[in-house]
Amino acid sequence: MIPNDKWFTEEDTRTGTAFSLRLGQKLQEEQTPWQHIAIYATETFGKLMVIDGCIMLTSRDNFLYHEMMAHPILRTHPAPRRVAIIGGGDCGTLTEVLKHPEVEEVVQVDIDKRVTRLSERYFPELCQRNADTRVRFHFEDGIRWLREAPAGSLDVIIVDSTDPVGPAQGLFTRPFHESCLRALGEDGMVVQQSESPLLHESLFRSIGEHLRQAGFARTRALHFPQPVYPSGWWSATLAGKRDFSDRPRSDEMLPGVRYYNADIHRAAMAQPTFLRK
Amino acid sequence: MIPNDKWFTEEDTRTGTAFSLRLGQKLQEEQTPWQHIAIYATETFGKLMVIDGCIMLTSRDNFLYHEMMAHPILRTHPAPRRVAIIGGGDCGTLTEVLKHPEVEEVVQVDIDKRVTRLSERYFPELCQRNADTRVRFHFEDGIRWLREAPAGSLDVIIVDSTDPVGPAQGLFTRPFHESCLRALGEDGMVVQQSESPLLHESLFRSIGEHLRQAGFARTRALHFPQPVYPSGWWSATLAGKRDFSDRPRSDEMLPGVRYYNADIHRAAMAQPTFLRK
Repeated sequence: MIPNDKWFTEEDTRTGTAFSLRLGQKLQEEQTPWQHIAIYATETFGKLMVIDGCIMLTSRDNFLYHEMMAHPILRTHPAPRRVAIIGGGDCGTLTEVLKHPEVEEVVQVDIDKRVTRLSERYFPELCQRNADTRVRFHFEDGIRWLREAPAGSLDVIIVDSTDPVGPAQGLFTRPFHESCLRALGEDGMVVQQSESPLLHESLFRSIGEHLRQAGFARTRALHFPQPVYPSGWWSATLAGKRDFSDRPRSDEMLPGVRYYNADIHRAAMAQPTFLRK
Repeated sequence: MIPNDKWFTEEDTRTGTAFSLRLGQKLQEEQTPWQHIAIYATETFGKLMVIDGCIMLTSRDNFLYHEMMAHPILRTHPAPRRVAIIGGGDCGTLTEVLKHPEVEEVVQVDIDKRVTRLSERYFPELCQRNADTRVRFHFEDGIRWLREAPAGSLDVIIVDSTDPVGPAQGLFTRPFHESCLRALGEDGMVVQQSESPLLHESLFRSIGEHLRQAGFARTRALHFPQPVYPSGWWSATLAGKRDFSDRPRSDEMLPGVRYYNADIHRAAMAQPTFLRK
């Protein structure tokens, strides 16, 4: 790979791949109690946030991931009033969630306040709705928060985490999925980012399996492009306490949405032949 | 990016991105009259073919591209008997085309015989059907071949080319698209690889526009993941002399297909909001 300091490279040692973006200047670098955060200007992708050496988001293409974490689940649950986001400190998913008028309250639980503070500064477009009166921010451990959440108190849980290393590791385990199930009401649903279906196939499959073992009635992977993540092909796994349709309950366009629409909703649910059981 | 000879890196200067694969040994390197070809073993993606510094294919993930170049068009055209592949020297698309019993003849026209010879040696799984009696190979300029093809002599044209630089440049122009139109019969269709919808948005859009200007009644982009191409999000543009459905004319599974199926066919046709007119 190219040997100069004009590029940021994320090397994915597990998979023998690397992805690089050509840089402008470094804007911020700090070690928090939980992780190392850096912000760069890039030449072609706007600003870049990196946590522990992994690309979290860029200004240019984060809409793909954030829209797909928020809209398919909120257009599948019949009445998503009470939403929790576990992780999601950059507030990109939160901004998308708040576009749904059905949503009455959102709790966002991210362990590291600095992610949110830096996003407010460098990605203000993702934080535009942070003052919405429907939102409460908790800067604490999302695993513990969810374990202590009253049973049946949520309609939708969005697990918008980093990779399953470091503080996010516990989010990819069955006890966490059992906490999700307990905290959800009757029609409750969860969606969790579930890595690359090609590069991380066994982890991808295990997330669906853990959710079903925890007691969810049905899971379905959502597929979408996310160029700055390993392989550019990313997924989220949707799980419901009851069966659910692959069609959105509404075709109405959401404001300022650039990727998601009703056709994309259905398309994201299509499963490649090699991933069918 | 990583400064050692253990990686192959494709730097996309137009877009400020780079993608790298961790290498084993170099297996082949040669300069043909048209281009520079190299073959490597990689650590995690099987073998890798590189032409003029651009990744053409790997053993591990070429099925995505090759299936999507062949099956959507052949399951859209009502009776695809006479097929031409322009480019496609590695024979991956050809192998997929030959899975369709409706296809009676396939002409493959690639300017560089060495691509095919090296694919036979290093990617034999893509060349398994090369002895099929329905196939004729022409090693010559596909633009000229198509210009001289009898009018109405083809049902389907698949433009399986490298990027629009070097020998493939003429495949991205209106005169070429007019040749396609003329060579096709009444229900004729063409599909052309059309780069990354995110990274090469203006080129992506111009291919559809050129095809419509040349006289095709309708175009539709197909979206699919292709991890080793820039951004991992790739496209092909389908064009018909008549209007065509977004649904496949058959749901029957094709033999040995790993990505494509009827759900994926429809899913690939879904257009992200930002790409709608």
